[in-house]
Amino acid sequence: MIYWIGIAAVATMAAAGVLEAGTKRFDLAGMVFVALAAALGGGTLRDLLLARPVFWVADQTYLIAALLAAMATFFVARALVLPLGLFLIPDALGLALFTITGTKAAMVWGAPWLVASLMGVITGVVGGILRDVLCNEEPLVFRGQLYATAAWGGALLYLAAPHLGFGPETSALLAGSAILLVRLAAIRFDLGLPRFRAKAG
Amino acid sequence: MIYWIGIAAVATMAAAGVLEAGTKRFDLAGMVFVALAAALGGGTLRDLLLARPVFWVADQTYLIAALLAAMATFFVARALVLPLGLFLIPDALGLALFTITGTKAAMVWGAPWLVASLMGVITGVVGGILRDVLCNEEPLVFRGQLYATAAWGGALLYLAAPHLGFGPETSALLAGSAILLVRLAAIRFDLGLPRFRAKAG
Amino acid sequence: MIYWIGIAAVATMAAAGVLEAGTKRFDLAGMVFVALAAALGGGTLRDLLLARPVFWVADQTYLIAALLAAMATFFVARALVLPLGLFLIPDALGLALFTITGTKAAMVWGAPWLVASLMGVITGVVGGILRDVLCNEEPLVFRGQLYATAAWGGALLYLAAPHLGFGPETSALLAGSAILLVRLAAIRFDLGLPRFRAKAG
Repeated sequence: MIYWIGIAAVATMAAAGVLEAGTKRFDLAGMVFVALAAALGGGTLRDLLLARPVFWVADQTYLIAALLAAMATFFVARALVLPLGLFLIPDALGLALFTITGTKAAMVWGAPWLVASLMGVITGVVGGILRDVLCNEEPLVFRGQLYATAAWGGALLYLAAPHLGFGPETSALLAGSAILLVRLAAIRFDLGLPRFRAKAG
Repeated sequence: MIYWIGIAAVATMAAAGVLEAGTKRFDLAGMVFVALAAALGGGTLRDLLLARPVFWVADQTYLIAALLAAMATFFVARALVLPLGLFLIPDALGLALFTITGTKAAMVWGAPWLVASLMGVITGVVGGILRDVLCNEEPLVFRGQLYATAAWGGALLYLAAPHLGFGPETSALLAGSAILLVRLAAIRFDLGLPRFRAKAG
Repeated sequence: MIYWIGIAAVATMAAAGVLEAGTKRFDLAGMVFVALAAALGGGTLRDLLLARPVFWVADQTYLIAALLAAMATFFVARALVLPLGLFLIPDALGLALFTITGTKAAMVWGAPWLVASLMGVITGVVGGILRDVLCNEEPLVFRGQLYATAAWGGALLYLAAPHLGFGPETSALLAGSAILLVRLAAIRFDLGLPRFRAKAG
């Protein structure tokens, strides 16, 4: 079950990568590269930090899912005129899926709870940061709407829910939905944390 | 002893991260992310390269120290008007502390001396590079004042001092102070290595 | 044999790093840092992903080769007036050498063929991406001429050739030459894949 959610998250983020790279006139190879970085970057950093085997190296399925999703999105996006901000929706879905699978993987590994929640955030946001840096855009995580905050809150909710009597699958569903809803609301209503006031020197 | 120096270095670099991010109008989550990257980035890369367990994954203390230092700096910096270049001082201190702990860790691991000195430099400079890249500033290490050079010189001094009859703690103190003093002098008097002359094509 | 090709690739990429950094007025320390990132970055990421010991950490020879090549290039480039695009030639040679050694290392490790070919591409292109990002240039891999595509094609050719009856050394020579020739032709005749058409929102 968690395996197929992982595959879905990888495919979703690869599609978001192609949709953003598509606004930049990259060639096909550049776009595939961006899609792979977006789809595999967060989980790769998590696995390196936990000294686990990197998830897509031993199992080609992830790589094939990312490549197929990138290709399919490429051809659909060439045929249709798509709105510029469309990649925000698969990005929000991928954020929710990756944060939950990342937190769970760190918990299973035995990480302390604060580290486990941060691993969830890393798994969720790093792929998108790589994508934005490669596309030379300011990372979404820094654009002032709830992003890492939504992921961190969801990861903590996922860790807390079993202590409130929820089963493992209900906890995952609850926390994942919370991340997705908070993130979509943040995009729609421009919600954010207070910003630091810049000081005069 | 080396453990508490490591904690102090992490807290120092987290504070420097907040002070630089504070000039950029990041929100709280973005600032915490920059502070964690600055505080943990160099040691993380060192541990990955040496195939050691990543220092902050098994022991939450580092993470908590970085978060507390970031929060404290955030609230102090909101209350006071601070000079823009203030982060240079904790940055110089963090550079000295991290270079020494990084070199020592690589030596204990059994790395050859040239590799050990480079690990010290990586531990010292990579956190600051990540911070500057995330803040979209040209990295300090490339701004032409002695920075990586000060760290490398200090790391080599730290490796050489025991052969000149100094004890391990005196060597660390000597080399760390040398890095801090050279770096502060480089900022104050704008010292640098000769630059490459750009050629006409 | 593959060992000395690896050393040659490291030296070649370090020289390309110095030649590009030389157009940016970096100081000596910055240039050495860029050269090391260019020379060691791709192989380092490959080794981390495969959970192998990082190639230059246990064996100082690579580090010394990169430093010597960087220094020699620095002094030659100061004495002569070199054309601006000169680094493209050692870069193409390094791409070919690294792609073959990276694919071979992943195959020996037992990676599935699609992963092995991608490891070759990563070994080939990541050092150059790091160099370009540190020099604040758009990465060559995204500039629209065949680059990652040439590396990927060569890696697949290298994996396929033994099944067509070629010996291991002939396969390596064949695939490496193909990468070098395609890349040089792409530079000379401005060959590229079709680009994504940007859409109006």
